[in-house]
Amino acid sequence: MRAVQVMGYHTKLQLNEVPDPVIEGPLDVIVRIGGAGVCRTDLHILEGQWQEKTGVGLPYTIGHENAGWVHAIGAAVTNVKIGDKVIVHPLITCGLCRACRFGDDVHCENSQFPGIDTDGGYADFLRTSARSVVRIDDRLEPADVAALADAGLTAYHAAAKAARATRPGDYCVLIGAGGLGHIGIQVMKAISGATIVVVDRNQAAVDLAIEIGADHGIVADGTHVPQVLALTGGHGAEAVIDFVGEGGATSEGVAMLRRAGNYYVVGYGENIDVPTIDVISTEINFIGNLVGSYNDLQELMVLAAQGKVTLHTTKYPLEDFQEAINDLDAGRVRGRAILVPTSDETGRHQRSEIHQPTDHRFIT
Amino acid sequence: MRAVQVMGYHTKLQLNEVPDPVIEGPLDVIVRIGGAGVCRTDLHILEGQWQEKTGVGLPYTIGHENAGWVHAIGAAVTNVKIGDKVIVHPLITCGLCRACRFGDDVHCENSQFPGIDTDGGYADFLRTSARSVVRIDDRLEPADVAALADAGLTAYHAAAKAARATRPGDYCVLIGAGGLGHIGIQVMKAISGATIVVVDRNQAAVDLAIEIGADHGIVADGTHVPQVLALTGGHGAEAVIDFVGEGGATSEGVAMLRRAGNYYVVGYGENIDVPTIDVISTEINFIGNLVGSYNDLQELMVLAAQGKVTLHTTKYPLEDFQEAINDLDAGRVRGRAILVPTSDETGRHQRSEIHQPTDHRFIT
Amino acid sequence: MRAVQVMGYHTKLQLNEVPDPVIEGPLDVIVRIGGAGVCRTDLHILEGQWQEKTGVGLPYTIGHENAGWVHAIGAAVTNVKIGDKVIVHPLITCGLCRACRFGDDVHCENSQFPGIDTDGGYADFLRTSARSVVRIDDRLEPADVAALADAGLTAYHAAAKAARATRPGDYCVLIGAGGLGHIGIQVMKAISGATIVVVDRNQAAVDLAIEIGADHGIVADGTHVPQVLALTGGHGAEAVIDFVGEGGATSEGVAMLRRAGNYYVVGYGENIDVPTIDVISTEINFIGNLVGSYNDLQELMVLAAQGKVTLHTTKYPLEDFQEAINDLDAGRVRGRAILVPTSDETGRHQRSEIHQPTDHRFIT
Amino acid sequence: MRAVQVMGYHTKLQLNEVPDPVIEGPLDVIVRIGGAGVCRTDLHILEGQWQEKTGVGLPYTIGHENAGWVHAIGAAVTNVKIGDKVIVHPLITCGLCRACRFGDDVHCENSQFPGIDTDGGYADFLRTSARSVVRIDDRLEPADVAALADAGLTAYHAAAKAARATRPGDYCVLIGAGGLGHIGIQVMKAISGATIVVVDRNQAAVDLAIEIGADHGIVADGTHVPQVLALTGGHGAEAVIDFVGEGGATSEGVAMLRRAGNYYVVGYGENIDVPTIDVISTEINFIGNLVGSYNDLQELMVLAAQGKVTLHTTKYPLEDFQEAINDLDAGRVRGRAILVPTSDETGRHQRSEIHQPTDHRFIT
Repeated sequence: MRAVQVMGYHTKLQLNEVPDPVIEGPLDVIVRIGGAGVCRTDLHILEGQWQEKTGVGLPYTIGHENAGWVHAIGAAVTNVKIGDKVIVHPLITCGLCRACRFGDDVHCENSQFPGIDTDGGYADFLRTSARSVVRIDDRLEPADVAALADAGLTAYHAAAKAARATRPGDYCVLIGAGGLGHIGIQVMKAISGATIVVVDRNQAAVDLAIEIGADHGIVADGTHVPQVLALTGGHGAEAVIDFVGEGGATSEGVAMLRRAGNYYVVGYGENIDVPTIDVISTEINFIGNLVGSYNDLQELMVLAAQGKVTLHTTKYPLEDFQEAINDLDAGRVRGRAILVPTSDETGRHQRSEIHQPTDHRFIT
Repeated sequence: MRAVQVMGYHTKLQLNEVPDPVIEGPLDVIVRIGGAGVCRTDLHILEGQWQEKTGVGLPYTIGHENAGWVHAIGAAVTNVKIGDKVIVHPLITCGLCRACRFGDDVHCENSQFPGIDTDGGYADFLRTSARSVVRIDDRLEPADVAALADAGLTAYHAAAKAARATRPGDYCVLIGAGGLGHIGIQVMKAISGATIVVVDRNQAAVDLAIEIGADHGIVADGTHVPQVLALTGGHGAEAVIDFVGEGGATSEGVAMLRRAGNYYVVGYGENIDVPTIDVISTEINFIGNLVGSYNDLQELMVLAAQGKVTLHTTKYPLEDFQEAINDLDAGRVRGRAILVPTSDETGRHQRSEIHQPTDHRFIT
Repeated sequence: MRAVQVMGYHTKLQLNEVPDPVIEGPLDVIVRIGGAGVCRTDLHILEGQWQEKTGVGLPYTIGHENAGWVHAIGAAVTNVKIGDKVIVHPLITCGLCRACRFGDDVHCENSQFPGIDTDGGYADFLRTSARSVVRIDDRLEPADVAALADAGLTAYHAAAKAARATRPGDYCVLIGAGGLGHIGIQVMKAISGATIVVVDRNQAAVDLAIEIGADHGIVADGTHVPQVLALTGGHGAEAVIDFVGEGGATSEGVAMLRRAGNYYVVGYGENIDVPTIDVISTEINFIGNLVGSYNDLQELMVLAAQGKVTLHTTKYPLEDFQEAINDLDAGRVRGRAILVPTSDETGRHQRSEIHQPTDHRFIT
Repeated sequence: MRAVQVMGYHTKLQLNEVPDPVIEGPLDVIVRIGGAGVCRTDLHILEGQWQEKTGVGLPYTIGHENAGWVHAIGAAVTNVKIGDKVIVHPLITCGLCRACRFGDDVHCENSQFPGIDTDGGYADFLRTSARSVVRIDDRLEPADVAALADAGLTAYHAAAKAARATRPGDYCVLIGAGGLGHIGIQVMKAISGATIVVVDRNQAAVDLAIEIGADHGIVADGTHVPQVLALTGGHGAEAVIDFVGEGGATSEGVAMLRRAGNYYVVGYGENIDVPTIDVISTEINFIGNLVGSYNDLQELMVLAAQGKVTLHTTKYPLEDFQEAINDLDAGRVRGRAILVPTSDETGRHQRSEIHQPTDHRFIT
């Protein structure tokens, strides 16, 4: 099969012909890729930022936001059958450790991360596990939802926590209305009665935020902290979800937070650097957020099937991976770039159909 | 009545004769002081650290850890009657704001803090509110429990949160086995099935921690982080309660924390300074802790009445306040220093009885 | 002032001239009534069903769903001022018992219930407490929201519990799309991602349910249990909110419930009569629901101000109380009947304006 | 191997020589039985009460409370190795359904129940799954803890729920101090600050309850409901755990319950039959309890290893199964009867060692 692989750090990816993955264990699932999201993390991998952390051997196939069709299953797989449309949870988890047994499979003690520390989905096929495939509704297409597998799932996970801790009349500030924030807004809108305030440096992003459901939009022009305070009667917001985590976002975010409020850390880059006396005198909490669980992904797919969560995607044939990466790096992608392996065999994805990058928004 | 008052900053307290407090509002309660805890915060007040924050007019009476007997009540007071033994919650709260209506009275939007921003309990009498007095069991004496009103209540509040979030087999590390940690250990022991690990620089404090219920004690000698990791199979603890919050405690504490763990901030001094990438990649939480609510204080008084939470106190007659403060400043107080107004009228507290500072541990 | 009073049981109400209520306690609030909901409970009172329970002395003024304007306040009232538009929580609570201190003021140990055990709101003025008045948004009118004070609040309370316990993809069945169910649907829609299924005997009610946000509507024609099971893949719903509670609703409702599901009891009449072996083998829960708390009412008023919860009302001048009661008894009221005291003094409610019962739906 | 099998209903069990179970699936685990609890359910199976529900083919091996040593493992088993001491969770679960993924594996959509619907543990060996074996501490012996696998786990599950919902000062009434109640008391004592009240018809059971940690014991002599009310200031208890569920226990239990209280249904037999008006006017909840989850069993094993939960067992060699069953039926067993397969090969359990039924209480 074809696979886009990391050949070395600080060098370009390469499309190679490699053996198809095969079923090795009883819970293995081979997914024929319908779409693989191109993520900023992929750029960081090439820069060598993950080299030491993962120690992954080269060459290997990247791509950790995947969706497609079940192509083959191991002997013990009972939850999907060949041909099922699925989105792929980014982690392969053991199912036997205490974290897995609690549904916190993200904290599995024996997990693998395809695309990061083992072969991923920039390819025709991907090997994952029965524990990682979530069936999706007929009206959803893999290439349309692939980007929800990681970026979207992270946003869902954080927003769902905030939704559970807020009530009508409470304010939830979302810092950053980019890819993750975009999903976060829609999730909060769909499952929460909180008043949604979006803060972003970009007027267009703020406008879009309002369009998809935010109650208030504020451009981060230096007056945004007092604006949030004014909006909240001087008290600050009960919840702040920080999708940025750099460039001063955290200290500004804390300044927008009400006493006893929750600060959801999602974006990262800078340090949280806050006096303990401020933490205890206002009794605020900082809540870490990694990617969501398998069940979170199921829930997000429900919202997607209901049309409550949608995202923009720009599709590229798999072989145009370099163009997609260049576009991402240059900030030319609207929404999320998705690699789509085309195949004459299935005819499902004709090149002509997606030759020109398109800006598609699915509606159910 | 007599009252120990702040006359100016960077100068000594003074015992003055002042008018007795009187009932002014319908929910007012006058408490005859049975004991007033001497707290390190009282030293900080004299150093002027609170001057700007509170803007309290001088002179005023300090003392925010109070217990005694109900002496007079306002027209609308229904929950206590004259003569009742009570401990005094440190805040006077409004009962009408949304925080009060949720039981989070500590976040009352209209609170007063006797001893900090209005007259406190280093005196024969204290004016507080019906909303602040908790009746205590007959077998408890005000002077014995006064120090639970603030320091103890804070420890209870944090430990009760940790107890609710842990299960048998989980580890809870308590950093600091001083006044607050001492109470925290007993609370965790009484209401939780978690395994209790105490870390303190002082061998004697560690020994005492074991004696009162800790499962493991570790002297903070530089090897304590690896020791906690070894104890927890390399994973770290599900909960860390940090009663220190300075001198590097927070970074060490975070190093002891398991993935998805909760870090309860109680002590303060230094900054939490942690990379957001560490917060999100391990998905840890920082939980702020202020003093407990009125209901928390009721619960703590239950544990005290049951003999499950006790504390050492060293009692001084009110007029010996300077000696108590000197002893505290010099580290000569075992447990908590308590000022006891003696009175010939009641005869309840004869000077002779407490002339010599005593080390008393109440048992029910 | 004028007051509609119970003169005896099994006899008609009577409009009497009685003294205006006056401030007696420091937290008293006098509300000039803008609207008083006419509730089926009022019919039951006249039938003597509450006579023994309350032992209320006759004559007294009924009416327990009230909204209006603050007319006078006691000395300790700080949360409202004269002229404020308010809705009135049905209970007067003490604020000092442990339940009140937890925000569960509905379980106050010292509560009064105006309209049931003391004078209510079928009158020009009502005496209540600062703890019972919730300020409402400028764009809301008292007569439009009065019925949310009790019936609506009960529905909110139950639905909010169900919302907190469900997730996207979960099913929530609401049995009964009448007054309470109508609010329940809107609340679930506003604050939850669950799929909403409404079951009612009346096709028109089912149609309206769909119109205001239900995802599925099922007419209770004898096939509704299998229909719900079919809809839920044979498993049943994660939550059932039963607004009926009689005529076999509970056994049918339990048959619609999934393993580990929650059955919210709101309506009443018949017994829950279920084998303990069924309760334990499927591990289902029955959750009782009384009226909501003060904070619940605040939240419901937020949803009302946002236009997310609306209700039909049919208004009658206060003096036409008998017509309103007759209409209710005969099933002629669409939505909720509201008594509106008109007053030449204020001119706010001209008789002409509401002479003809109108069917008004507020939109903000 | 030897296996005690159901040959027909209303006839005696029979010890047969059957083939040893073998590994068939990748997650299979064969356990060499160290102890198999004899449970009242085993009597009910013989009476045919489960015949229709399970449709299990005869003959088959009964026994659903098992512990022992890992004897063989499938290819995908990573959490235990041969020789490990384990207790066996009563269910074999799929690990892939949504309930399993949430840690609610008891509600697995594809579970098996060895001893009930497939071969169980009255035998030398048992086939179960990697998902069902919990490693136990070295200081615990399989035969001593086997009865915790089902009866004890159920009690733990219910008590742990009650512990999470109560606070110091709250009362928890346990109805029935038999096998399950015995464990429930110890669990509440170990992990909760609630005041424990035990109600049982048997004075000796009440005495034992006090001995192992109950704060109050009440003999159910007809005055027990008023006694509980008196103890709780007339309010009733915040929690009632009903281990009986028949003979009027539920209506008495409800009468002991405080407003807003939780009634935990564990024992079964009669119906819950309570007017919905009582459920809503007091806002009480009924909480169903099935057996605990895998993680619950891990936690219970922690408490057992810590010596906080112990139970009496009376051991019988496997071949004396009929004596054990007769003793149980006649009420002659103190604590729990355990069948122990002896084996000359291992010498671990010499017949002589356990020839005489012994009454052993393990202490760590």
